[in-house]
Amino acid sequence: MNEVLSLPAQSVLAAAARIAPHAVLTPVLRSRALDALAGARLAFKAEHLQRSGAFKFRGACNAVWALAPGQAAAGVVTHSSGNHGAALALAARTRGIACHVVVPEGAVAAKLANISRHGATLWRCAASIQARERMCAQVQADTGATLVHPYADAQVIAGQGTAALELVQAEGPFDVVVVPVGGGGLAAGTALALQQLAPRTRLVLAEPAGAADTARSLQAGERRIDFVPDTVCDGLRGTLGAPNFAVLQAAAAEVIVVDDAATVQAMRLLWQVLKQVVEPSSAIALAAVLAQPQRFAGLRVGLVLSGGNVDIDALPWGAA
Amino acid sequence: MNEVLSLPAQSVLAAAARIAPHAVLTPVLRSRALDALAGARLAFKAEHLQRSGAFKFRGACNAVWALAPGQAAAGVVTHSSGNHGAALALAARTRGIACHVVVPEGAVAAKLANISRHGATLWRCAASIQARERMCAQVQADTGATLVHPYADAQVIAGQGTAALELVQAEGPFDVVVVPVGGGGLAAGTALALQQLAPRTRLVLAEPAGAADTARSLQAGERRIDFVPDTVCDGLRGTLGAPNFAVLQAAAAEVIVVDDAATVQAMRLLWQVLKQVVEPSSAIALAAVLAQPQRFAGLRVGLVLSGGNVDIDALPWGAA
Repeated sequence: MNEVLSLPAQSVLAAAARIAPHAVLTPVLRSRALDALAGARLAFKAEHLQRSGAFKFRGACNAVWALAPGQAAAGVVTHSSGNHGAALALAARTRGIACHVVVPEGAVAAKLANISRHGATLWRCAASIQARERMCAQVQADTGATLVHPYADAQVIAGQGTAALELVQAEGPFDVVVVPVGGGGLAAGTALALQQLAPRTRLVLAEPAGAADTARSLQAGERRIDFVPDTVCDGLRGTLGAPNFAVLQAAAAEVIVVDDAATVQAMRLLWQVLKQVVEPSSAIALAAVLAQPQRFAGLRVGLVLSGGNVDIDALPWGAA
Repeated sequence: MNEVLSLPAQSVLAAAARIAPHAVLTPVLRSRALDALAGARLAFKAEHLQRSGAFKFRGACNAVWALAPGQAAAGVVTHSSGNHGAALALAARTRGIACHVVVPEGAVAAKLANISRHGATLWRCAASIQARERMCAQVQADTGATLVHPYADAQVIAGQGTAALELVQAEGPFDVVVVPVGGGGLAAGTALALQQLAPRTRLVLAEPAGAADTARSLQAGERRIDFVPDTVCDGLRGTLGAPNFAVLQAAAAEVIVVDDAATVQAMRLLWQVLKQVVEPSSAIALAAVLAQPQRFAGLRVGLVLSGGNVDIDALPWGAA
């Protein structure tokens, strides 16, 4: 935690320079129709067009390229079978180093294939958290690989902050920036980016009602993370990390809690009007803005569309 | 026809300057995964992100703003109930002039609502071509409005050419540019743009097998337009215009004829991999490239994604 708290906002600028040769400078999209609907001026950072289909590549890439050469040579390891696993595998490949991903029994085959595709080695273990951590420690001991946590990692946080950095540089200033929050990597990185580049821009986090640990934690003044997530936003089911909480608390981040129904409706709008294939975890940011029109009326609002890894044959609004 | 043949390639540059204050400078999208699949380097001009959801706004806007003030005051008229009707209505609104759209009985209600939404006056008539032309002539006589044909119009063609112009300026040079062809407005405009800006870039047209009048016409050396269209590409069912044919013939445009099944498959790829909601008439350009890998191997290929006006509840690949 101290590591991140002592992480200067400057670290986001360093991350931007570090990942520039590898990451996509994603476009910022606007829609007059959505502006009219929201009563605000919206700018969407299209991170679903990032490599691996999500902002996750930014943090993974920064973590991989921040390693000293000797350390990097031993590779990296993580225990995420989702977007972070694929992003880390791809990031490791950009540096030509090994990547180990510990995956629990029962993980979705399509996601595992996506990780293998980028050349990572899969290590299977039982489904419990304990089994995953044990296997991870074992791989670290055997290979010397560096653990890259999906969100509670200083370099990952700094890397995720580069999305908001680019958004503000390209289309700022904004009155508010809205990003989804799950484990808090994107949220904390965005807080650092705004601190560095736009200290007067407010940070609003969009969080599913079925996984509202960030809202509860910030309200209580301490982490409240014992819950069973229940939300269509599969990217936001993780629990808020300790360093992430500390950064968000210091930044006075606000949270809007959103029902899944509103998220699905916003996702339809993003598909039909903005013409972008985004996942529910992305759409929740727009849903938060539409849920509280008085809060955003007339404002310049930046939103991060965090990812687009969705099965177009299994849409949450059901078959026609 | 002479009017367009005498239309200098320079007219596309004039159109670009004329529509700049009103049209969206749409982004160019790339995908390493699609590049790998095609064995070529692909750049997609995202015209589905243009105002009104299709490149059609460019031509309509150029036609509206090219009118002399006195002529403009009497408004414009057309008889397209599709994307051109909505685009012309929106273009007329940018100049604050009247727009009349003649619509046949039985036209899709959602499309008519889209035209009305932009403030155009609808004139209903019987479904036959004769009835539409008669009503159009009547509106012209009564109001003095200028007819803006959807594609066989010099200013419309020049306006449509600005999409390729921007594509080449932003991401060129290209070995080949691939665009869909229906009536030939986008195709002829692209030919003029390439003539002006990139005379060594080849022009390839993607045409549905169920509406392959352009392929037949260019092969025969004269227009062959007596056919009943049968294709999932609802934007490409029109018949090749006379001036459009002349421009395409002069430009030695090549045509690739594509089956609907290949178009639907390409549309799935654009949704799932490029994460863009595009209509079948857009996807046919990628389908053409994928259908003839040897023809495009290793080349720099520019493609225009022409529009994204598709019902996300009625997708051509059916419900999951």
